[in-house]
Amino acid sequence: MASRKDLANAIRALSMDGVQAANSGHPGAPMGMADIAEVLWNDFLDHNPANPDWFNRDRFVLSNGHGSMLIYSLLHLSGYDLGIEDLKQFRQLHSRTAGHPEYGYAPGIETTTGPLGQGIANAVGFAAAEKILAANFNKPGYDVVDHFTYAFMGDGCLMEGISHEVCSLAGTLKLGKLIAFYDDNGISIDGEVEGWFTDDTPARFRSYGWQVIDNVDGHDAASIAAAIELAKANTEQPTIICCKTVIGFGSPNKAGSHDCHGAPLGADEIKASKEALGWKYGDFEVPADVYEGWNGKAAGSEKEASWDSLFAAYAAEYPAEAAELKRRSTGELPANWEEVSSKMLAKFAAEPTKVASRKASQNVLDVIGAELPELLGGSADLAPSNLTFHKSSKSITDKDPAGNYLHYGVREFGMSAMINGLALHGGFIPYGATFLVFMEYARNAIRMAAIMKQRLVHVYTHDSIGLGEDGPTHQPVEQVANLRNTPNLNTWRPCDEFETGVAWVSGIEKTDGPTALILSRQGLAPMERTAAQQADVAKGGYVLVDSEGAPEVILIATGSEVELATQAAATLKEQGKAVRVVSMPCTSVFDAQDAAYKESVLPAAVSKRVAVEALHVDFWYKYVGLNGKVIGMSTYGESAPAADLYKHFGITADAVVEAANSL
Amino acid sequence: MASRKDLANAIRALSMDGVQAANSGHPGAPMGMADIAEVLWNDFLDHNPANPDWFNRDRFVLSNGHGSMLIYSLLHLSGYDLGIEDLKQFRQLHSRTAGHPEYGYAPGIETTTGPLGQGIANAVGFAAAEKILAANFNKPGYDVVDHFTYAFMGDGCLMEGISHEVCSLAGTLKLGKLIAFYDDNGISIDGEVEGWFTDDTPARFRSYGWQVIDNVDGHDAASIAAAIELAKANTEQPTIICCKTVIGFGSPNKAGSHDCHGAPLGADEIKASKEALGWKYGDFEVPADVYEGWNGKAAGSEKEASWDSLFAAYAAEYPAEAAELKRRSTGELPANWEEVSSKMLAKFAAEPTKVASRKASQNVLDVIGAELPELLGGSADLAPSNLTFHKSSKSITDKDPAGNYLHYGVREFGMSAMINGLALHGGFIPYGATFLVFMEYARNAIRMAAIMKQRLVHVYTHDSIGLGEDGPTHQPVEQVANLRNTPNLNTWRPCDEFETGVAWVSGIEKTDGPTALILSRQGLAPMERTAAQQADVAKGGYVLVDSEGAPEVILIATGSEVELATQAAATLKEQGKAVRVVSMPCTSVFDAQDAAYKESVLPAAVSKRVAVEALHVDFWYKYVGLNGKVIGMSTYGESAPAADLYKHFGITADAVVEAANSL
Repeated sequence: MASRKDLANAIRALSMDGVQAANSGHPGAPMGMADIAEVLWNDFLDHNPANPDWFNRDRFVLSNGHGSMLIYSLLHLSGYDLGIEDLKQFRQLHSRTAGHPEYGYAPGIETTTGPLGQGIANAVGFAAAEKILAANFNKPGYDVVDHFTYAFMGDGCLMEGISHEVCSLAGTLKLGKLIAFYDDNGISIDGEVEGWFTDDTPARFRSYGWQVIDNVDGHDAASIAAAIELAKANTEQPTIICCKTVIGFGSPNKAGSHDCHGAPLGADEIKASKEALGWKYGDFEVPADVYEGWNGKAAGSEKEASWDSLFAAYAAEYPAEAAELKRRSTGELPANWEEVSSKMLAKFAAEPTKVASRKASQNVLDVIGAELPELLGGSADLAPSNLTFHKSSKSITDKDPAGNYLHYGVREFGMSAMINGLALHGGFIPYGATFLVFMEYARNAIRMAAIMKQRLVHVYTHDSIGLGEDGPTHQPVEQVANLRNTPNLNTWRPCDEFETGVAWVSGIEKTDGPTALILSRQGLAPMERTAAQQADVAKGGYVLVDSEGAPEVILIATGSEVELATQAAATLKEQGKAVRVVSMPCTSVFDAQDAAYKESVLPAAVSKRVAVEALHVDFWYKYVGLNGKVIGMSTYGESAPAADLYKHFGITADAVVEAANSL
Repeated sequence: MASRKDLANAIRALSMDGVQAANSGHPGAPMGMADIAEVLWNDFLDHNPANPDWFNRDRFVLSNGHGSMLIYSLLHLSGYDLGIEDLKQFRQLHSRTAGHPEYGYAPGIETTTGPLGQGIANAVGFAAAEKILAANFNKPGYDVVDHFTYAFMGDGCLMEGISHEVCSLAGTLKLGKLIAFYDDNGISIDGEVEGWFTDDTPARFRSYGWQVIDNVDGHDAASIAAAIELAKANTEQPTIICCKTVIGFGSPNKAGSHDCHGAPLGADEIKASKEALGWKYGDFEVPADVYEGWNGKAAGSEKEASWDSLFAAYAAEYPAEAAELKRRSTGELPANWEEVSSKMLAKFAAEPTKVASRKASQNVLDVIGAELPELLGGSADLAPSNLTFHKSSKSITDKDPAGNYLHYGVREFGMSAMINGLALHGGFIPYGATFLVFMEYARNAIRMAAIMKQRLVHVYTHDSIGLGEDGPTHQPVEQVANLRNTPNLNTWRPCDEFETGVAWVSGIEKTDGPTALILSRQGLAPMERTAAQQADVAKGGYVLVDSEGAPEVILIATGSEVELATQAAATLKEQGKAVRVVSMPCTSVFDAQDAAYKESVLPAAVSKRVAVEALHVDFWYKYVGLNGKVIGMSTYGESAPAADLYKHFGITADAVVEAANSL
């Protein structure tokens, strides 16, 4: 029978071989954390390699994602559908073993990691998801939602600010089933961390209310196991296990130094390391007894089967709850969704009201929030401004987690990466809110949601100089273009309550990526639409006001500037111009329409085009071309009442008229 | 003589009146921190209201910038050129009292604040600047650089991740002359913070190595003064003074609640508050004895005069150092700069070499770093990858701060906001580096540098799928468009060593805003240029390869794709096409050229245009129009060797040829 050391050395050998074959990658972390991973996966992790989607599995997150060969080795060895050939293809095109762990590529990868600090934030999201679902669904004797979330992290994760945001909140929420391992190896890319990282990390985590298990020898299986036992026993606090490790453990000449962090060890050093470790096998060779020691399929199937029995009994006693949990875990919308959403839109159309689109969004939430218990809200301490707390919202607290609204505090990045975790966990459609400009604090988490194609909704209010007095630091200019350029993300900037409703419905129904809603602080006049036009809003861009006969000039607008475009169109019409107004709430959805539809909205023959949006002008040349004009911003805003600012920056109906006439 | 309470109440009264007149703003924080501010400004702050630019003044940063009426009140009362009329114009167009404190608007504003957490990060930059300059310039008996940096911060700043990054680093660097005040009022926008913020903040800051002065009554002058004395006495550690305060102190019905955080108190409540405080004066009225108690002009002039004497004596004994400090404090470049930079560029032109542009950047730094002691480098733990450590680099440590290179650790946002502080302080041209995609972690600090028009350089390497195996999380797609859309920021993506040199020179010479350098991981072939072409690089876009006679088609490219465009041009030429290649390393600089030059490069008559860049395609429609084509990315990348990726994503010379022929 293979010893624990043999089992751990299999990770080290595969990691060295994988990185060497790819001629790029990071062997140091996998070699350093191999013993910890071995104990955790073989003795504690509840998972089923044959079914990576088992809903009640423990979640495992490698927050230091550059150590990807660690997780690929674990998945391969424990019996996931990831063969040795996959490992040999590490970092090659079309392989499932990408340079960093990519969600959706290899089975068992719970989240894409690499951008440091976000993995632990996702893990906090997983743990929050578990706690909230458990509170909402478990019944006496039926802990049908009951799993741990484990995360590995290195010095980099702990230096990143996001680790502060989410670990602080995890302490407040008492996420007692979150267990993090700190790979304290003293090395980062610039060298020995003591020159730039001298935190007393255990003291820091105690200040967050965590249980801290300090001074664990990360190469001693018994110490690791004892620490995990302690961690699991305390479900009132999240736990951090601080492990002293040696980066590149086993490499005679590179262990403990930066040299083994991010480059192949080289053939000679690999040979020397394998000798030093007593690993006698060839490249990518793992002996049968080691495979046997690792194989988690039988135990996994047993665990899932046992849970299946529990769930069957639960379903017998609580059929409605069981059906609902099942529905939510698969991401299906309720049977009445279509009815709820169409009724809501019909009401908005029938009773046009002038409201800020942030208020329209709250009106939407008041309706759909009552029907979608999976809608898990929150804001980064701006609930009264973002208007994200709706009639059916109930705050989640450490003592009463059976709610549907998280107060994230002033933690935009933490919130956004946590909702990625909430979405990935299953059971939720999360939304998170802040002022649009502070989307920037969270920007990379938004990108990560888009890369992972997660269904969630970002609510961004105060969307332009229209917010007024708060001034340039608060007034978005270049932010929406950035969101629109983000692949897989739909960015909606609705012009009134009806479009806001359509945007929300689109976000809820989009299962292959996130949605951003760009909402105004100020009131927006409702537009009139025919039934056909109402239907066309969902196409992202449509003719809102048309000319009689072919248009000479087309005005394109979004959000708060649509009304202004219609005013300009009225003036131009009086002047005898054949003018069309296109409302374009979502450019990516419009771009995805068929060519005929797009041509019907923006005929190629009409090159006289003016776009108007109180945001950066450059984005719009894509639609108006070299001969068109764009009315918008190319500088920062100013602090003043909104009406003064629109005049000051020349974003007026007159300016649109003038631009149209100048073409 | 006015009592301390009277003096503090002047802040409260002005803050209530200012917010009321504007009908928007935040009275709660100024009213809560008035007593702390009164003690600090009247008893401790070394500044000269008559000369806000006195180099050795203490720096004061209001990190909770929404409390802007606090700093406007302080500036007005202590004698800065900010009259009562300015205060009455709070939040109006063209006033100097913007909604948040804006650098360059009112005298005495050291940095623009509002985006939470960044003020304290700027303050860490100020304190680092002082420590580094002092180490480089002070002589025995001549502490010519010797000042404190004070920062106010609220719960929001402390929840933000960036506070972790910079306070951790401040502890490591032992910035003993940094003194921060925590306004512990228990309230944030969502309500009482205990639901989302339960950190033991004193313990947290002890874990960073700070001196913590806890449990200070923020409304008791003697306690505040005693705490500041203690803080100043310890110059080995930064100090945080944790003050218990009541938000909206003095308001009978709104103090201690969220109601007074971000909205005017209303006329009735203001009346009641003034009565409760014993403030008997009209709107915006301050009695003479209160003005007298605040006036800091005499003391300030005396302090500056005393420093002037010290500096004169220093200059007599150390004339070279004094002249150099003077030069650096005014931001002038060395007399030989022109010579140094032209010689460097001439060498690059004369000895064309194939190097990655990140390596070219290091070659530039090797030259200019030796001549510009004000160049203060750093990277967020990627020095060996960003290649930012040059031949004259010397690491700064807590024990030896007399260097020119900061190891920021894995703290992109903290680094970027710190270099804003370093630039604002004076004496430095800072540069900071990370992988381009992780610019996103720091994004809002980049915007803040641009808003404040600070001279600094962002070095962003690994600029596209060209980085290869690290995969989609590391491969930029939409990032450069975002930077190009950022007002006041110049974004350069050079195609070879020569263009990299020009980009660096441009960044060093640009005194009205920051510069971002977008650099490749992979080697780039050097382009051939005539002397005229060499000169035109500085114009941001120029004809690199021209057709004989008027061009039929124009290829526009940047960075690593310029070589590819020249290959395509060669093929097209063979096919008999008149083709021009435009290298466009910096679109904003090109856009700023006169119309004639732009027409000479991109003649309006030539509508057949193809842009090629391994980044998001949408940006380029601005230059190719509706009839042009763009070869680039509109999805995320993949993990694979770079050459495979270029082929996979169709970014090839053949694709450019095909696109050109299809027009």
